Amino acid sequence: MSLIVQKFGGSSVADAEGIKRVAKRVVDTHAAGNEVVVVVSAMGDSTDELLDLAGQITTLNNAREMDMLLSAGERISMALLAMAINQLGGSAQSFTGSQAGMITDAIHGKARIIDVSPHRIKTAIERGDIAIVAGFQGVSQDSHDITTLGRGGSDTTAVALAAALEADVCEIYTDVDGVYTADPRVVSSAQKIEKISSEEMLELAASGAKILHLRCVEYARRFGVPLHVRSSFSSHEGTWVLPSPDDKIKIQEGEPLEQPIISGVAHDRSEAKVTVVGVPDIPGKAAEIFGIVAGANSNIDMIVQNVSTQGSGRTDISFTLPIIDGKEAIDALNAAKAEVGFDSIDYDEQIGKLSLIGAGMRSNPGVSHRFFEALHHAGVNIDMISTSEIRISVVTSAKLLDSAVRAVHAAFGLDGDSEATVYGGTGR
Amino acid sequence: MSLIVQKFGGSSVADAEGIKRVAKRVVDTHAAGNEVVVVVSAMGDSTDELLDLAGQITTLNNAREMDMLLSAGERISMALLAMAINQLGGSAQSFTGSQAGMITDAIHGKARIIDVSPHRIKTAIERGDIAIVAGFQGVSQDSHDITTLGRGGSDTTAVALAAALEADVCEIYTDVDGVYTADPRVVSSAQKIEKISSEEMLELAASGAKILHLRCVEYARRFGVPLHVRSSFSSHEGTWVLPSPDDKIKIQEGEPLEQPIISGVAHDRSEAKVTVVGVPDIPGKAAEIFGIVAGANSNIDMIVQNVSTQGSGRTDISFTLPIIDGKEAIDALNAAKAEVGFDSIDYDEQIGKLSLIGAGMRSNPGVSHRFFEALHHAGVNIDMISTSEIRISVVTSAKLLDSAVRAVHAAFGLDGDSEATVYGGTGR
Repeated sequence: MSLIVQKFGGSSVADAEGIKRVAKRVVDTHAAGNEVVVVVSAMGDSTDELLDLAGQITTLNNAREMDMLLSAGERISMALLAMAINQLGGSAQSFTGSQAGMITDAIHGKARIIDVSPHRIKTAIERGDIAIVAGFQGVSQDSHDITTLGRGGSDTTAVALAAALEADVCEIYTDVDGVYTADPRVVSSAQKIEKISSEEMLELAASGAKILHLRCVEYARRFGVPLHVRSSFSSHEGTWVLPSPDDKIKIQEGEPLEQPIISGVAHDRSEAKVTVVGVPDIPGKAAEIFGIVAGANSNIDMIVQNVSTQGSGRTDISFTLPIIDGKEAIDALNAAKAEVGFDSIDYDEQIGKLSLIGAGMRSNPGVSHRFFEALHHAGVNIDMISTSEIRISVVTSAKLLDSAVRAVHAAFGLDGDSEATVYGGTGR
Repeated sequence: MSLIVQKFGGSSVADAEGIKRVAKRVVDTHAAGNEVVVVVSAMGDSTDELLDLAGQITTLNNAREMDMLLSAGERISMALLAMAINQLGGSAQSFTGSQAGMITDAIHGKARIIDVSPHRIKTAIERGDIAIVAGFQGVSQDSHDITTLGRGGSDTTAVALAAALEADVCEIYTDVDGVYTADPRVVSSAQKIEKISSEEMLELAASGAKILHLRCVEYARRFGVPLHVRSSFSSHEGTWVLPSPDDKIKIQEGEPLEQPIISGVAHDRSEAKVTVVGVPDIPGKAAEIFGIVAGANSNIDMIVQNVSTQGSGRTDISFTLPIIDGKEAIDALNAAKAEVGFDSIDYDEQIGKLSLIGAGMRSNPGVSHRFFEALHHAGVNIDMISTSEIRISVVTSAKLLDSAVRAVHAAFGLDGDSEATVYGGTGR
């Protein structure tokens, strides 16, 4: 008997029919002899409707009340799902984040889980019941207020519960078949990945692949939770995200977990490039600049410091950050212009980032050569480069990004024979 | 400085505009130097929408999950109301039934409050904040499950909180100006009652007046909470429901709280009359019959046992009960027909109950004479009679009920000079 945590996003439970379909799958999993815990998001567009109502009422940021408001969404979907399961002859009980023991800090809107105490969930599954848990929400440790976990929060709830319950697998149901070697909307020959290490998945998610949120993968990796990303509309195997090569889950009995050299290509159009021109070339200036940007709550991604022009005593520093953080960061830098002593700022949103990810590149020195050759042949300029042990990322102009992705995907033999189904993503 | 509990029903917070209007009133009350606790119901039709969704999913009675589902409604309205108050420069925090310390038994769908521990509410108002509390919901003492209080539950929440907080008054906002001497849809000259004892209000509510639920008035009376029933659409004084004549609240300084002889006339079309014909006239048979009806979860209201026909050894027993309980009670009686030994059952839904209520009738022996004379002159037959110290009720045929109400209302000088605004009611 396995303990399986299943997570269903808002698009899977968008209406009564969707809820019944999910209920059927949950009941079937339970009937197959498994213990089942289900994590569910709010129904379809219901979160947007609540946000719209709030927008009609206030222009202020009411973080505590916004969390109270939004947490209503999962109560509705989870209670309805429990009813649908009971209707099919199952025995289900729903639990709020608080009842499920999802203890968080008090940072409303993007709370972090600090403890999971799922006593009531354990009792329910030991009794043979199916436990339904509200995704995305928790309760703050000290103030006992309702909190929400921010984007991707339901995935994080599922993985955190799976870790605390020592589940055999955490299944993330979505509207696509799994994780692909590239975004199928850009590369029609992209293939579904059968298995990938959580290390690589982490790099993919951080590089713009939207199917799993970074935070959920980080959590799964840290606590050794095997993830299975699959479609709620089919029974096909999806993509297994495995914490380590010696993990207890095997795709097929006896099959060794061998790594392909390259797992996939990710791209990201959500960042902008900032260049601070004419920075005095003296120690501490880079730290000063990044301190100002961090103070404006912006996350810097890639950084390039140009070589100082001989004798000028000045240099340029370029970095990328999320477009949504751009204005605040630029304002903060301009406010400190005299103090830092730079000449001007260039800001460019027309950039794209392409990343090649694969644990195999550690032991294959030819990877970067083939990568840059493919970009060169495709006529793609390169603005910035950054690398990790298992990733190479480049920044190029936005309009060349799609052809760059296709060129790299083909150069590493990732193209499949059949057209991929179209890629989507869930917000919560 | 007074501590005021204000309760707003679903029709007052049906949309963003309604929520803003309520917020304005709350902020004004607070700005006038009062401590304010607000109890709020779910928005307008939102409860019906949730019930409709549940109806698409299940035919079973999922009481626990239904409570989880319905309790989402108040989370939405209370969070939005808190935001609207903050937008006006107030400082508000919303609290679920559980956070507000509404501890109930575990009877889902109609839980009873067994303890109120509003520590968080006290802390909030001592800090100068406005506390918004979810009406209608609580948490069960032993199982820590979400419960709802059933019809009129938000009124009960408000009164229970007012009692626990030792509030100076509990204001019940509704869509009419107050309690009337009769239903203005039937008696256009009905007048608003300025003040009424909770004892009389209890009899009015039990006799069919829908403006306040019996349970809320019972609670207010037991804990000595003064109620002020008023309109959320005007600033007029409404009706004060005062626990005892020596209550600390006075309508006007120096005015003695004198009772009019009669407070009002109530009517009720929600009951049916059952006559069990040919019951053996031996001790214990009535108890046996009422035991069967109670076992079918029906609440018996009025009872008449006819005089036994000389020598027959048999008698008829008539009683009234809610129409919605009728079928179950009749089925239960028929199942026990042989055992009880009666001949047949008559069942009549075409009845109406009229009640005259007034604490003054205790010391005015002429009241019942004038009452029956008025009914006689109006040509109204009388099927059944029951009385309490401060109430006379009769059952008549449904089609004569309206004219009976008008005749009695006029006979006791309750008619006013102006037309009353039309009477309504709230469900939650």
